[in-house]
Amino acid sequence: MLQDSIAESIHRPAVLVIFGASGDLTRRKIIPALYNLFLDRWLPQQFRIIGFARTAMEPAAYVAQLRSGVDQFSRRGKTGDAEWREFAAKMEYLAADYEDESAYRALLASMNAGWGEAADKIFYLSTPPALLPTVIQRLGQAGDYWDRPEYRIVVEKPFGHDLASARELNALLKRDFSETQIYRMDHYLGKETVQNILAFRFANAMWEPLWNRSFIDHVQITVSEEIGVGRRGGYYEGSGALRDMIQNHLLQLLCLVAMEPPTSFQADEVRNKKVDVLNAIRPILPEQVDQFAVRGQYAAAADADRERVAYRSEAGIDPHSTTETFAALKLYIDNWRWQGVPFYLRTGKRMPARSSEISLQFRPVPHHPFSNTLIQPNRLAIQIDPQEGILLRTLAKEPGIGMNLKPVEMHFSYHEVFATASPDAYETLMLEIVRGDPGLFMRADQVEAAWVAIAPILQAWQTTVPQDFPNYQAGEWGPAAAEELIGRDGRSWFMPVCLEPGSRNGCKI
Amino acid sequence: MLQDSIAESIHRPAVLVIFGASGDLTRRKIIPALYNLFLDRWLPQQFRIIGFARTAMEPAAYVAQLRSGVDQFSRRGKTGDAEWREFAAKMEYLAADYEDESAYRALLASMNAGWGEAADKIFYLSTPPALLPTVIQRLGQAGDYWDRPEYRIVVEKPFGHDLASARELNALLKRDFSETQIYRMDHYLGKETVQNILAFRFANAMWEPLWNRSFIDHVQITVSEEIGVGRRGGYYEGSGALRDMIQNHLLQLLCLVAMEPPTSFQADEVRNKKVDVLNAIRPILPEQVDQFAVRGQYAAAADADRERVAYRSEAGIDPHSTTETFAALKLYIDNWRWQGVPFYLRTGKRMPARSSEISLQFRPVPHHPFSNTLIQPNRLAIQIDPQEGILLRTLAKEPGIGMNLKPVEMHFSYHEVFATASPDAYETLMLEIVRGDPGLFMRADQVEAAWVAIAPILQAWQTTVPQDFPNYQAGEWGPAAAEELIGRDGRSWFMPVCLEPGSRNGCKI
Repeated sequence: MLQDSIAESIHRPAVLVIFGASGDLTRRKIIPALYNLFLDRWLPQQFRIIGFARTAMEPAAYVAQLRSGVDQFSRRGKTGDAEWREFAAKMEYLAADYEDESAYRALLASMNAGWGEAADKIFYLSTPPALLPTVIQRLGQAGDYWDRPEYRIVVEKPFGHDLASARELNALLKRDFSETQIYRMDHYLGKETVQNILAFRFANAMWEPLWNRSFIDHVQITVSEEIGVGRRGGYYEGSGALRDMIQNHLLQLLCLVAMEPPTSFQADEVRNKKVDVLNAIRPILPEQVDQFAVRGQYAAAADADRERVAYRSEAGIDPHSTTETFAALKLYIDNWRWQGVPFYLRTGKRMPARSSEISLQFRPVPHHPFSNTLIQPNRLAIQIDPQEGILLRTLAKEPGIGMNLKPVEMHFSYHEVFATASPDAYETLMLEIVRGDPGLFMRADQVEAAWVAIAPILQAWQTTVPQDFPNYQAGEWGPAAAEELIGRDGRSWFMPVCLEPGSRNGCKI
Repeated sequence: MLQDSIAESIHRPAVLVIFGASGDLTRRKIIPALYNLFLDRWLPQQFRIIGFARTAMEPAAYVAQLRSGVDQFSRRGKTGDAEWREFAAKMEYLAADYEDESAYRALLASMNAGWGEAADKIFYLSTPPALLPTVIQRLGQAGDYWDRPEYRIVVEKPFGHDLASARELNALLKRDFSETQIYRMDHYLGKETVQNILAFRFANAMWEPLWNRSFIDHVQITVSEEIGVGRRGGYYEGSGALRDMIQNHLLQLLCLVAMEPPTSFQADEVRNKKVDVLNAIRPILPEQVDQFAVRGQYAAAADADRERVAYRSEAGIDPHSTTETFAALKLYIDNWRWQGVPFYLRTGKRMPARSSEISLQFRPVPHHPFSNTLIQPNRLAIQIDPQEGILLRTLAKEPGIGMNLKPVEMHFSYHEVFATASPDAYETLMLEIVRGDPGLFMRADQVEAAWVAIAPILQAWQTTVPQDFPNYQAGEWGPAAAEELIGRDGRSWFMPVCLEPGSRNGCKI
């Protein structure tokens, strides 16, 4: 989609209401994203942002709190006075109880005031998960939105706690909104490099012939964090790595790397192709869970670093917690393209490095005339974090006498190639919401299919208490069983690649 | 072949005689290569270098002249006194008439003296082409070499002037030497990046599936020089670009890029696969030469730069010369892999830049979902000169709102990756001669097949006088007809890629 056609679609006035306006996400992500879109002139001229939350607060205090958030978290750094004043004029604050029906009626009346009648009206639900049903129900009682595309509802993750709760939430949403009005957030889908996976795969003719079981040995997806649970203990303790990362982010990356070529970038076309992947994931039988999934929980760091305490010693965590802070999976995709090709997924907290990376490991050469030389198969690494770029590992002749092969890397780094800074994922997604294109958001069937894929593991882990927790030290790549999971197949986990050695984004590993 | 096994094969003593020892090539290439092999301890301990030439000269003067050549042309720069003294002790000089039979007998007696009986004995023919038959015949009269692998004969290019003369030269050589004793030089085959083409193609499983008519649109091979004919006028005037560059260097590059995978790196296996390519080149019918070949000759530079005079004004050149200084060809290879894929070859003097480069242009994507966006097909560029490396042009998503594609480059540069300097091609080849492996040299059938491939063009250009000479200005990429040759097929010549922008090897274009 060209920028011209985007510009056209943001001429309509819009009113956005944020439920959970006093929360952390509003301050760290939502408002900084809106402010940057405003600076880049991507917001409609006529735009209002209504904050809705329980906390009683002076509007001026509310706005000041958001400004400090922008100052701290915006990719542009400190706000300027003039710009902020203009932006702040678009903001209002409404303190109310989430249960209070009349508050919703008042809100809708306010949204419709003035040019609001002709405006797009967006409900952005950024409340704690437990409040979602209440807000959706009260909204439904207060107005009529069905099949009126000017109304949109945005739901932050987590979307449900398991398959049953996700289905309930979908049923609730669908009473008042049609699917095209519903925007389920997975902010990974707004990241530049994640979007680039589609461009890279389908704008370059050379990859598609190689992108299948004939040439790919296996695929690895790692999303590792260096941090521990931090201040999220209250939420995380009831969730764990499988729900918090695998069900959404890692399975979405899996879809992008495994999907068939879409015929267009229409929202439903791309999402259809992704759902095809999720539906083709081979179900894990209850008795096989241990062969296909490994869980872990971090102990304190070996060096007795006072900051890196055991998960069970973190704030808000049960001292006997059985919540997993690490999960590794092996999945098969039962279709023509991927039959027999394992997809290894892992994610964890307190790993040696922060990294999000997809690696496609090619098969070895069928025959090699290079006697006495070790041949390493090709590997294509797509790094999303900490750097953004793509790296291809090949072999070349080492200069000098004789035919000795050495691995050499061909790569490009977004940072090196493009002078323009990447917009934050929230900016991209927020603009899509304002424009009314749900392509980068999760559709009901996607969310549910992802829950289906991990349901047997979720079930098994809930019913069996892990005897070995904690089973890895902070600063390790998870428990030994994770190495065994992939080692049984004669493979091993990759280290993250280094796209810009020696640069300010230099690599830790 | 591993370095250990190479070291073993250079334990035998060896005596090398250079015919044409007072010539430019000996000073610029042969002796600097031998000196570097000596420094790197690749020469046998027992090694003698006998210079044979017509010019009467004191041995000390001869050695001093060679030292100044090494100082000037060795990749290591100035020689050290101690090292040079040790090396110089291996050198002798023999002034004699090339016709004088007794001189050859004396030479052979000298070569066999001392440990010479047990030594490898190498005849390196670096004389002007007209003297080759004399030297070969006189050598034959003086000794018996047939099927005695300790005797080897090296023949510098040009190897013949056309198919008939090449056949004559081969017949002459084969009277006294078996094919495995004959080393026909094409120094391109000793270049690191040229050898790397085989490593790159066959040590990396990802290329072979793409390396055929299904995915490659066309191939370009450009070898351009910035210099004019310089002091080589006397030779060049009777040769021209087709004989001087296409028949050997460019057709060898074509073989490396087009050949089937060899089962081993045995000398004859690789050369068999190369000959297969030459034999599969579609013969150009006499009446079609103008559709498949373009010749050019440079005029003075447009800026009246006094150095860049017209070819016809260069020293030793006929003011009405019809010798071509530029040639461009379109070839087809009639086999399963390459049917319908044109190979465009061009070479010339006084081009805008010095460059040797092979480009494989991929076909476009069969379908692209990226509306309103220009899609550039992938291109793989193998640069041999001025930098050594490989560059892959792909498309990526430009950061920012919307799906805009931009070309990005993934590359590696030998210079950046490998700290060790590449040995000069002559070092590599000289070591292969000492070791006794003819794999990097031209076999009789290769040379003749290459002459067969260009014979119809040679014939047509000899019988038709070019009416438009000179037809390009110094500093241009050849005549307009060269653009038309490729332009008729809806394609155009590529600019050389830039592997190290901003480096000391930075790109001119």
